[in-house]
Amino acid sequence: MREFILLALKAKTSPNINLDDLVGEGRLDLVCRVVSSALFLSHKIRRDTVIHVAMSGPRLPPKMVSFYGSTWAGITPDEKAIAETIKKALSKGASLALGEEKDVQPGVKVAKKAFETLVKEKSETSQLIYLHPKGEDVRTFKFEQNPVFVLGDFLGLPKKTEKFLDRLGAKKIKLGPNVLFSSHCPVIMHNELDRKEVY
Amino acid sequence: MREFILLALKAKTSPNINLDDLVGEGRLDLVCRVVSSALFLSHKIRRDTVIHVAMSGPRLPPKMVSFYGSTWAGITPDEKAIAETIKKALSKGASLALGEEKDVQPGVKVAKKAFETLVKEKSETSQLIYLHPKGEDVRTFKFEQNPVFVLGDFLGLPKKTEKFLDRLGAKKIKLGPNVLFSSHCPVIMHNELDRKEVY
Repeated sequence: MREFILLALKAKTSPNINLDDLVGEGRLDLVCRVVSSALFLSHKIRRDTVIHVAMSGPRLPPKMVSFYGSTWAGITPDEKAIAETIKKALSKGASLALGEEKDVQPGVKVAKKAFETLVKEKSETSQLIYLHPKGEDVRTFKFEQNPVFVLGDFLGLPKKTEKFLDRLGAKKIKLGPNVLFSSHCPVIMHNELDRKEVY
Repeated sequence: MREFILLALKAKTSPNINLDDLVGEGRLDLVCRVVSSALFLSHKIRRDTVIHVAMSGPRLPPKMVSFYGSTWAGITPDEKAIAETIKKALSKGASLALGEEKDVQPGVKVAKKAFETLVKEKSETSQLIYLHPKGEDVRTFKFEQNPVFVLGDFLGLPKKTEKFLDRLGAKKIKLGPNVLFSSHCPVIMHNELDRKEVY
């Protein structure tokens, strides 16, 4: 399985989201594009992929909305449809206590869980990877099966998050000569993993 | 310069576009994501890139909306902002006669021009490329400078368009083992061209 964890620092965690102004809602537009890039192929879903969106904007942080390609159904890849699903998740999860999780719809769950908690759990079982301009080229990097990628949003990963990842033994990679837009990163990663048959 | 031509077969060409239902407007959501993928890097625009959207949906086809990275300004990468620009272009271009072109705003033009006309012009000066599952791998393909990529939307390129491209000497490439979502294709192409320093 391929797993992505998106740290969405400003994405609103209360469910009163205006679906007609995703940019204004803590850059929810970008969050939705990352989800779309992680999960969609032409006319099908990547069944081997999970993406967790760790949201820490106002007013009910932390919130973790997770999309499971294996069971995801009936969602189109446009920003607004994905935003509607996130809104529904935040609504269903509004009163969760820390550590609790709830089903939202097939392939979508919401939890009251912090980014750090999930990343720490994953580091115990999987190869943890994040993007860094001084990382190893994705084309030469030795992937293990079931890799977990940590991504930042438009703000990138804060320095303290990078240090936290380093302490957990995370590996740094880079995708090419240019620093890419967040939502383009899963596309390059998937392409490399498809070629190397890493699942 | 890198150039993309997106054949958007169903994208509406009359300017009465509902910005809150891009999926319903001939999959304008997808068109916007392709534009975004072709032109955006992290916190900057690809100044060396142009994308032409050849729209042939109802009711005023053909329409060509072209985005020039070199002079594009003030547009955010979310679907709705790009759709607003396309709507403005269609409005300004509503009464153009065949062959006429008009400035919309810095870096954006609209023309009454068919896909086939533009592709034919480009074939005379540039290496023309399109995606095909039996094409050569993008990683071994020999790019010339100023390549022009032809892309399909959710419907793909019709067989007759592939034949037309073949007659013009277009080359076929593939991006990897999987057939990708349209809006992910420019990301892989750019990554390869960045690595090979093809502009």
